[in-house]
Amino acid sequence: MSFHDATAVTSDPSVDGRYRATIHDGWDINGNANGGYLIAIAARAMAAASGRQNPVTITAHYLSPGKPGEVTIDTEIIKSGKSFVTMTGSMRADDKPVLQVLGSFSDIKSTGDVLLANGEPPELPPIEDCILNAHDPDSGWPPPFNARIDLRLHPDDTPNLNGIPTRDGKRSGNALVRGWFRLRDDEPIDAFGLLQASDGFPPTVFNVDLPVGWVPTLELTVQVRSNPAPGWLRGKFTTRFVTDGLLEEDAEIWDSRGHLVALSRQLALVPRPTS
Amino acid sequence: MSFHDATAVTSDPSVDGRYRATIHDGWDINGNANGGYLIAIAARAMAAASGRQNPVTITAHYLSPGKPGEVTIDTEIIKSGKSFVTMTGSMRADDKPVLQVLGSFSDIKSTGDVLLANGEPPELPPIEDCILNAHDPDSGWPPPFNARIDLRLHPDDTPNLNGIPTRDGKRSGNALVRGWFRLRDDEPIDAFGLLQASDGFPPTVFNVDLPVGWVPTLELTVQVRSNPAPGWLRGKFTTRFVTDGLLEEDAEIWDSRGHLVALSRQLALVPRPTS
Repeated sequence: MSFHDATAVTSDPSVDGRYRATIHDGWDINGNANGGYLIAIAARAMAAASGRQNPVTITAHYLSPGKPGEVTIDTEIIKSGKSFVTMTGSMRADDKPVLQVLGSFSDIKSTGDVLLANGEPPELPPIEDCILNAHDPDSGWPPPFNARIDLRLHPDDTPNLNGIPTRDGKRSGNALVRGWFRLRDDEPIDAFGLLQASDGFPPTVFNVDLPVGWVPTLELTVQVRSNPAPGWLRGKFTTRFVTDGLLEEDAEIWDSRGHLVALSRQLALVPRPTS
Repeated sequence: MSFHDATAVTSDPSVDGRYRATIHDGWDINGNANGGYLIAIAARAMAAASGRQNPVTITAHYLSPGKPGEVTIDTEIIKSGKSFVTMTGSMRADDKPVLQVLGSFSDIKSTGDVLLANGEPPELPPIEDCILNAHDPDSGWPPPFNARIDLRLHPDDTPNLNGIPTRDGKRSGNALVRGWFRLRDDEPIDAFGLLQASDGFPPTVFNVDLPVGWVPTLELTVQVRSNPAPGWLRGKFTTRFVTDGLLEEDAEIWDSRGHLVALSRQLALVPRPTS
């Protein structure tokens, strides 16, 4: 099943602004759907309701784990302006809140107009020299979600290559994860695919001396800065501050032209050790 | 009038979840209320409705300019959890949307626990050697808002010291603004004051070769990472990418202990030249 089909939404004519979707099996990390996958589903409902094509900036708060099954997304137009339509979206499963989203949508086409770019795509070895971070059905790690995407990690940033990282020196000590990203079967990536990419890499903090476990996202904001050109994306994920039980994860997503196509930041909880 | 009083909200008992507030005169940039001031008002209403003290992560989309006068803030609890209460807030003036907000609130106290800090407060000259960015009533620049705060800018980052910057070489060429920040009369700064600080500095892009004018914020997200210690805050604002008519502005706010207390990012429109 393609990402496009796995994030499909249908309008529910019985309730104004309501959409229905399915959290499909296999997009999960230990049973909980990936956050980028969930925000992409919500964003597709909100875009449909907005009448505009793309999220420009979108924020989700994660309220409970997304389990496989049916969900509803209730959308509301807050303001419909000339350039932007601002929407809220509430994803629920069995009337339990899963995701609350706020986003602005537009039809603005990328002009490719770059007035300032103080930054470059991450330097990566050729794809064939990077580490395929594919799901291992035997060990369960990397998780099932990693069978849905095609992620090739920088060899310096792959502490989890052989399962749960240990304290045996395999960690780089840098809260940094870089790699090549595309959807499975090289499915074309649009703005919704960029939302997926923005939460599609292993946690940065697996590379530093912190407990390894689920890193629950509280909030994710993605700025979609351009429609990506076809081909592999490059991602760079960094964490600079782990304080008072919270950490941010910043991502830059670059396309094959070398254009920045998304900037994202999430706030997450410091992982607790898995027992 | 203090910041505390200027951002006060009162519950409207006639409508569940509704608060009333006033956008006070003088917190504006050319007639439009500062974005940090507006999000602080909304956040106070949302915190009151949540029963929790502090925003932890909060996002506002700016829908129309905030003009002095009465506003309502309609709040809704999306999820009330053990650690966090997630809320929406809609600020309206004369039934016109001004601000749509999504935030999670908590009572978590700062532990001062720093597990990773890959960054330091910006290096600034002593306060007395920095440039007071005070409102000039004669020229109108810096704007009235700057009479409400006490901002001392790094001398390298002050293109607008003598009015609207020109192309005469005074611009640093770096989309960087650093400085000391406090509220007027050294009013104590809480989490809501941090929201103000996160949008309290002149635009970074005034320092590069772009048109000078209003830089309309589409969206601002602030992570409140710690309660600030008393004393001056230090702020560092940077922009790395100006593409397709959009730019991000990233801010770090540091307190007098040298702790990171807020991380923020906004998405704004590239300014159009003022006629």
